[in-house]
Amino acid sequence: MTLAEVRALARRVLRGVGLDRMHAEVVAETMVAGERDGCASHGIYRLLVAARSVAAKIVVPDAVPDVKEPAAALVAVDGGGGFAQLAFEMGKPLLIEKARRFGIAAMAVNNVVHFAALWPEVEALAEQGLAAIAVTPSHAWVAPAGGTRPVFGTNPIAFGWPRPGHEPFVFDFATSAVARGEIELHRRAGRAVPEDWGYDRTGQPTTDAAAVLDGAMRTFGGHKGSALAAMVELLAGPLIGDLTSAESLARDAGRGGSPIGGELIIAIDPAGFLGAGVAASLARAEALFEAIEGQGARLPSQRRYAARARSLSEGVVVPTALHAEIMDLVGGSERI
Amino acid sequence: MTLAEVRALARRVLRGVGLDRMHAEVVAETMVAGERDGCASHGIYRLLVAARSVAAKIVVPDAVPDVKEPAAALVAVDGGGGFAQLAFEMGKPLLIEKARRFGIAAMAVNNVVHFAALWPEVEALAEQGLAAIAVTPSHAWVAPAGGTRPVFGTNPIAFGWPRPGHEPFVFDFATSAVARGEIELHRRAGRAVPEDWGYDRTGQPTTDAAAVLDGAMRTFGGHKGSALAAMVELLAGPLIGDLTSAESLARDAGRGGSPIGGELIIAIDPAGFLGAGVAASLARAEALFEAIEGQGARLPSQRRYAARARSLSEGVVVPTALHAEIMDLVGGSERI
Repeated sequence: MTLAEVRALARRVLRGVGLDRMHAEVVAETMVAGERDGCASHGIYRLLVAARSVAAKIVVPDAVPDVKEPAAALVAVDGGGGFAQLAFEMGKPLLIEKARRFGIAAMAVNNVVHFAALWPEVEALAEQGLAAIAVTPSHAWVAPAGGTRPVFGTNPIAFGWPRPGHEPFVFDFATSAVARGEIELHRRAGRAVPEDWGYDRTGQPTTDAAAVLDGAMRTFGGHKGSALAAMVELLAGPLIGDLTSAESLARDAGRGGSPIGGELIIAIDPAGFLGAGVAASLARAEALFEAIEGQGARLPSQRRYAARARSLSEGVVVPTALHAEIMDLVGGSERI
Repeated sequence: MTLAEVRALARRVLRGVGLDRMHAEVVAETMVAGERDGCASHGIYRLLVAARSVAAKIVVPDAVPDVKEPAAALVAVDGGGGFAQLAFEMGKPLLIEKARRFGIAAMAVNNVVHFAALWPEVEALAEQGLAAIAVTPSHAWVAPAGGTRPVFGTNPIAFGWPRPGHEPFVFDFATSAVARGEIELHRRAGRAVPEDWGYDRTGQPTTDAAAVLDGAMRTFGGHKGSALAAMVELLAGPLIGDLTSAESLARDAGRGGSPIGGELIIAIDPAGFLGAGVAASLARAEALFEAIEGQGARLPSQRRYAARARSLSEGVVVPTALHAEIMDLVGGSERI
């Protein structure tokens, strides 16, 4: 499929399952970005997730985000229980404007349902010339270092950095040892997971994927990853008056829905500190990237950008079974 | 020694080796904090480091920091080549004022010599009711994930969170696999280091501590720690017009001095997002801490605070040999 076809399919299906037009358009874009960048798990596979969220009334399909300015350099968007994407998009122009005016600004996206990666958001800000950090809790699935019972979510941290003439430097990773979906894939395949991925319900290390899903995952990087996971909870939970991962899971009440709650995005304008020295200083950042790539190490976003270049010229491959499953969402055999 | 005696000793020695009075006072405070919190490596042992920095002209002993406001929510302090502590202290009131006025603010501390931990700084901001993040590069000693040659510094990340009625939640960790001092201790003791700490000069994994010091350390947490190390370089280097770790090491030119360059501190006022809801929201953060401690896991700052409580009542123990070495800095056998 071409990316235009992916976009049309995603929009039509999202509209078909009952999502309001504005939401359908921006949610479709994140799925197009996932397919385009070779992240199949964040591509149109997520149509199934979005459809379930609407059907189970986990998400408000026609929520109207409300953009507020709680302080001069802060933006807060109440997403009204809708998907996070539209709330982010509606607050983004004001976040960018404030970052440029004050040098730094932050945006809270509150009361939204999350199922997408954070990298499209920090990449969009970096494309505007800003450095950006984004964090969000999820559901309480991850044990703190030194413990065995879930407290944290998979709590991703994303960062974007502007590179004039290049795609931005972007990373986005879970502070859990692995993505939860990775454990789910092991469970489906009947494969054992490494012993350092998690614990069973009794707090014992286990290689049984199902037992980890029922017990607790570990953080990456021991006590350091655990500290970062706590930071994410605090910054995108209590700091912005929104749910921690434990509160999100409690709110879900066993429905198995996507995490509900908030997200914090910090944007910094390099011109704020550097004034006319921006170009010279950004060039020094390029020397850092060269020192990494020059020894054969990859930049975090490199694989995604390579996939993007391929997708833009060659389109993407959607597995037949997935396509059929998606078509079922909007009435079976109809050709889309 | 009581902490008052540690303070008097540190001030007298710092003055004795030629540091200006204002610098001596604030630098002494970070050493008192290190001794008090059981962090001997950041205690008065650092008097030896500071004295060498002055003697080798790595630091400007009477630098007068210059506090500027490059943008409405930004503070930039040019430390004039002095130790970082005075520059931070002189900019701190304005950073706090801006964070409260705009909801978020950031401070660049430029052109300073770093030898201290970052936790005293984020703790001081958290005690003012702010959430704070601090990052700084160091010298290029650490290889990126997928590489074996040094690019990054040990690049610490520190975070502070206000807890009304408690000491703040604080962490401060290197994004390298271990502290460089830990490898140095192994070298002195003739002990092998674990194979995942670093590489020798030819890029081979090694258990020889001296070879790692001469080669490259690894980041913690694989590609995730490596991504964070890059973020620290960018935020506290090019973003604020200051040196990367590679540039700092080049500037040192083999003198073996402390890292030179910048530091970025971000401060966020919870009241900015929460208004009158601050108390209720900070109480939700306490539930997170209870969920961690309730299962026997430690909060990152817990050990430090326990040591602090002991030191405040019982004083601290300074090894005789260290005390003698410190006394030698200011004229041998004189009783202090």
